[in-house]
Amino acid sequence: MQKVCIVGANGYSGVELIRLINQHPFLSLELIVSHSNSGKVITDLYPHLSEIVEENLEVFDTNEIAEKVDIVFFATPAGVSMDYLPALVELGIKCVDLSGDFRLRSSQLYKDWYKKIHTNESYLQQSTYGLTEVNKEQIKNASFIANPGCYATAGLLGLIPMMHTGLINYESIIIDGKSGVSGAGRNPSISSHFAEVNENVKAYKLGAHQHIPEIEQILLDHCEIPIKLTFSTHLIPMTRGILCTIYVDLIKKISTNEILDIYRSFYKNAPFVRLRQEGTWPSTKEVLGSNFCDLGFFVDERTNRLTIISVIDNVMKGASGQAIQNVNILNGWEETTGLSFTPVYP
Amino acid sequence: MQKVCIVGANGYSGVELIRLINQHPFLSLELIVSHSNSGKVITDLYPHLSEIVEENLEVFDTNEIAEKVDIVFFATPAGVSMDYLPALVELGIKCVDLSGDFRLRSSQLYKDWYKKIHTNESYLQQSTYGLTEVNKEQIKNASFIANPGCYATAGLLGLIPMMHTGLINYESIIIDGKSGVSGAGRNPSISSHFAEVNENVKAYKLGAHQHIPEIEQILLDHCEIPIKLTFSTHLIPMTRGILCTIYVDLIKKISTNEILDIYRSFYKNAPFVRLRQEGTWPSTKEVLGSNFCDLGFFVDERTNRLTIISVIDNVMKGASGQAIQNVNILNGWEETTGLSFTPVYP
Amino acid sequence: MQKVCIVGANGYSGVELIRLINQHPFLSLELIVSHSNSGKVITDLYPHLSEIVEENLEVFDTNEIAEKVDIVFFATPAGVSMDYLPALVELGIKCVDLSGDFRLRSSQLYKDWYKKIHTNESYLQQSTYGLTEVNKEQIKNASFIANPGCYATAGLLGLIPMMHTGLINYESIIIDGKSGVSGAGRNPSISSHFAEVNENVKAYKLGAHQHIPEIEQILLDHCEIPIKLTFSTHLIPMTRGILCTIYVDLIKKISTNEILDIYRSFYKNAPFVRLRQEGTWPSTKEVLGSNFCDLGFFVDERTNRLTIISVIDNVMKGASGQAIQNVNILNGWEETTGLSFTPVYP
Amino acid sequence: MQKVCIVGANGYSGVELIRLINQHPFLSLELIVSHSNSGKVITDLYPHLSEIVEENLEVFDTNEIAEKVDIVFFATPAGVSMDYLPALVELGIKCVDLSGDFRLRSSQLYKDWYKKIHTNESYLQQSTYGLTEVNKEQIKNASFIANPGCYATAGLLGLIPMMHTGLINYESIIIDGKSGVSGAGRNPSISSHFAEVNENVKAYKLGAHQHIPEIEQILLDHCEIPIKLTFSTHLIPMTRGILCTIYVDLIKKISTNEILDIYRSFYKNAPFVRLRQEGTWPSTKEVLGSNFCDLGFFVDERTNRLTIISVIDNVMKGASGQAIQNVNILNGWEETTGLSFTPVYP
Repeated sequence: MQKVCIVGANGYSGVELIRLINQHPFLSLELIVSHSNSGKVITDLYPHLSEIVEENLEVFDTNEIAEKVDIVFFATPAGVSMDYLPALVELGIKCVDLSGDFRLRSSQLYKDWYKKIHTNESYLQQSTYGLTEVNKEQIKNASFIANPGCYATAGLLGLIPMMHTGLINYESIIIDGKSGVSGAGRNPSISSHFAEVNENVKAYKLGAHQHIPEIEQILLDHCEIPIKLTFSTHLIPMTRGILCTIYVDLIKKISTNEILDIYRSFYKNAPFVRLRQEGTWPSTKEVLGSNFCDLGFFVDERTNRLTIISVIDNVMKGASGQAIQNVNILNGWEETTGLSFTPVYP
Repeated sequence: MQKVCIVGANGYSGVELIRLINQHPFLSLELIVSHSNSGKVITDLYPHLSEIVEENLEVFDTNEIAEKVDIVFFATPAGVSMDYLPALVELGIKCVDLSGDFRLRSSQLYKDWYKKIHTNESYLQQSTYGLTEVNKEQIKNASFIANPGCYATAGLLGLIPMMHTGLINYESIIIDGKSGVSGAGRNPSISSHFAEVNENVKAYKLGAHQHIPEIEQILLDHCEIPIKLTFSTHLIPMTRGILCTIYVDLIKKISTNEILDIYRSFYKNAPFVRLRQEGTWPSTKEVLGSNFCDLGFFVDERTNRLTIISVIDNVMKGASGQAIQNVNILNGWEETTGLSFTPVYP
Repeated sequence: MQKVCIVGANGYSGVELIRLINQHPFLSLELIVSHSNSGKVITDLYPHLSEIVEENLEVFDTNEIAEKVDIVFFATPAGVSMDYLPALVELGIKCVDLSGDFRLRSSQLYKDWYKKIHTNESYLQQSTYGLTEVNKEQIKNASFIANPGCYATAGLLGLIPMMHTGLINYESIIIDGKSGVSGAGRNPSISSHFAEVNENVKAYKLGAHQHIPEIEQILLDHCEIPIKLTFSTHLIPMTRGILCTIYVDLIKKISTNEILDIYRSFYKNAPFVRLRQEGTWPSTKEVLGSNFCDLGFFVDERTNRLTIISVIDNVMKGASGQAIQNVNILNGWEETTGLSFTPVYP
Repeated sequence: MQKVCIVGANGYSGVELIRLINQHPFLSLELIVSHSNSGKVITDLYPHLSEIVEENLEVFDTNEIAEKVDIVFFATPAGVSMDYLPALVELGIKCVDLSGDFRLRSSQLYKDWYKKIHTNESYLQQSTYGLTEVNKEQIKNASFIANPGCYATAGLLGLIPMMHTGLINYESIIIDGKSGVSGAGRNPSISSHFAEVNENVKAYKLGAHQHIPEIEQILLDHCEIPIKLTFSTHLIPMTRGILCTIYVDLIKKISTNEILDIYRSFYKNAPFVRLRQEGTWPSTKEVLGSNFCDLGFFVDERTNRLTIISVIDNVMKGASGQAIQNVNILNGWEETTGLSFTPVYP
């Protein structure tokens, strides 16, 4: 049994971690931390946890955490974990950071896209990128884990198997992302106000989303060619779910079924990646509440362009579910431990 | 390990049973049956079950079922189980009927409210009403179980603790029910068409809902006075969830906190009933995906009227979750076995 | 042509007034005022007004307003108009207050329910309550108008025709209100955050909603008996619309059709009240974007209780639409001038 | 005053036409026709029309129509108007076809994409494509009008101004379409069932949508080079609205502001096209209930790719609104007559 602390337990990723840890056979929740709500009982903020977890939210205290727990999840906004995670890592605590603070290897990129100065640059190179299906070996021996962004997870799982194939035009990649509103967190704002979001679709942060350099960095690892892609984000009137529609130009003729073979082979040991057969494509509801990433494909013979549909639950595979999956790997447990949820449907 | 068959596996209660059985340590799914879709693979209808359950839907065959399984769930529309359940019961198979066919003890009431002639009247008296919190002893030894209606579950769990108290005017009971659309099943119709339901609230079946006699029958058991109540149903633009706002006139002065004491005492052994403290009331999202029924109270001193707020997930505590809870009781297992889901939030 | 100013033009009632004034043949918008956003162009806050209204939001200045316009709408939160409206009235400007500041005749009730001290008590008695269908004669000669609350409009239009009939038990009135989220305004908060409201129903402010004394005060006018009623409010995952389910005990036998006759007679000159025939009830979507209040009825012979369903668009008949309707009356124009919108469906 | 008939008045485009004709100063509704619902009163199907339009739906009768009306709108599914429209055109009746039957000039393309044999091929060449902003001169003298598809309208208004500029790579065009559910009409099906659509996004008809050849045909008119594009469609959990995200590779360096100049010039006489300034993009709610098409732009210097955001209300500018706009042009009336709706917000 490993003891666990969640920093930022008052956000959506935080409460999802509580749900998952609660169902996990080898994890026990010892400490929940919140800067903005310390002193409050978590059920005052989240009555759905009544009689399940009724602990107080505590202030952050490195020594107390290091004494009490084995694993720390940072479910904090950008700019927090860079200050607090390194000390815990030094003390030998396993850390998983769900924020973007340790995903980019370059502090310059961090500054350009996050509009903040990184305060612990030297740790950027030590972090292990926790896209589980792709980085399993490194994760086993990670010093600490930078859990991928939600869009980045959906986009990368859809794209990576094509990167080595020599089949695509590397300059042609476009990801059209569509996300539910929970991805924006629990902080009230007009852009997540019900009356503004409901019965509405809108594009936002065109050309400026911080997952762009994250995706490009990882794609580079898989094709050794610097990639510049177009990635657009859209807000959808739903709570959970991301669907990425990915477009790539093919430089050779290939059928949808041959594409499927490439992915079947790539993901043969990936219990959370499911492939739809030709002519059908996954929808976000088909993975809701689960850790699955479902993929579907279409090769348009008219344009010789491949369309990939990738869906995840942004709070699960896009955040807390993948964090638990990484902790499973890190501890040498079965990857699916505590994560075998059937999607909640309808 | 008990082997299980679901009849009507192609409906929403059916697939929810699949989700629950899949997580249950002592149940294994052997057979899924569908009249309208026999021969099809379940994942053709429900891709979210890919790589989880990929069985064919079979035709109904009493002997085959009796040979293969120990427990049968009927997740069928009204008018089906009355023809098929009795033969299985005779063969010693444990049956749980999620439809309304065996809930009313009077075939005349069945005819009046379901607009059908009952074909196996004699079984009406043998059935055990599966409102777990209230009927636990009878369920232990049930010959077969009539699982309560979704609205009836929310209404009765909210009302029953008051029935013996001598505190209420029995003629004053009003239940204002609000339900998500999944309660209407998966059969397409204009009344469940997205463009008609979205951004809309409507009342339906006023004075004609078949859960009225069901609630009245059970209330009579708990106060020995025939009850006639007003029960109104409203369709809410959401998928899952029922909220019942229950109004009763008080005939004595009593505070909200004293009411809470009555419920605390009544539900002290009920792991799935949670009570909100004075001044707060539960919302449907706080039980989504779980088997909880959450209750909140308000005594209006100005009118001496008690308002009770009762919420459930209609597909869980209002159908499949409670069915599993009943099977747990029936088998002598811990009531919460396979049902300890934290609500999915947000 | 009358010149118009909107104070609080940056809220939802404010922009709805802009939409309506823009379509009105005899009103022209001269000035838009906002305390919190003065200096901004309205289209920065509401791009849907691009190329329609692109004015700056101004600070409030009594003299400037009095010089420039004939009519002022206050679409402000509670506690604002009580300080600013009286001076305008003194200067002979026609004012319509969409807030609750001048609806209650008693400053004590204002303090009890609004939790504020009224700063201009003497004006409480001068105000005319703008429930158009009921107060048309007084509105014609009003010094200024207190536009009714949204719930109060739906509740009162449903109840008033019964108050004089001698058919009902005055102690039995219950209004179960269900509202879209726009009623809470545009100020972001967790309770109107998309991820919290979507796929959710919740009760709020039980026994504490400020429309309770408003409804009771007006009902008293129509039956000369002090009324204490139960009024519950529920938040529905939709943007616009209010549905009130109203319950009253009947003290005589009467059929649904006889009830319909009472309402037909009462509303024979009310172009915005529509009655559904027996066996059907209105839904909120059927009035969306329009100024209609639709009513449906059900007499339950089993309980001798009348259920009334009343629906409005809360931003229209529940706020800005009724404000324009009142201005029409006040100016001696046809009541429907500029308001003949067919509901937007679907 | 022109007299009007709507064929297919029982569908969503049909009732939207009723709403618009009702507000139009020069059109009067004489006849509503429905094959599937003839004999019924329209308010039995659409209670929101109570006291507004309460006519019977009639069977289709060419002679009766020709005698009674000047203009006929076909708001019918594909495959209907091709049989009925030609006879009316021969009799001199002005027809606007909102279906796809006369949009494609090639009967082979019609067969390939609509999976039907066209029964009146010779009329394909006579029809005028009713994309108002682009075809105004031809519409003035049209024999009859093929009203554009909803996606095609949003896509083409976004793309056409770029086609002549010599700035784009013609092989690179991708349209990622996102639509509300009303576009699928009122016929119930699982794919438009509330519980399946709500809290869900899905891709559908990849590479097979019938608006693909429609868009390609019109683009060819504007660049004289045969275009093959990728067009993907996604179902969004909302009722109204289409947002198209359009991607084109630029072959020269150009800024977002220079792009804006191109569109400003192209649409200088287009009252229903609104352009958002650099750094902001329109959302579907900002045009809801109105006839506007709002456009926003982003040039990504990193990839030299242009992203165009185009939004419309699919039932208005994407169907019935544009049909009225075309009738205005056809009759020599001001283009905006009866269409000056401010969007309904929120």
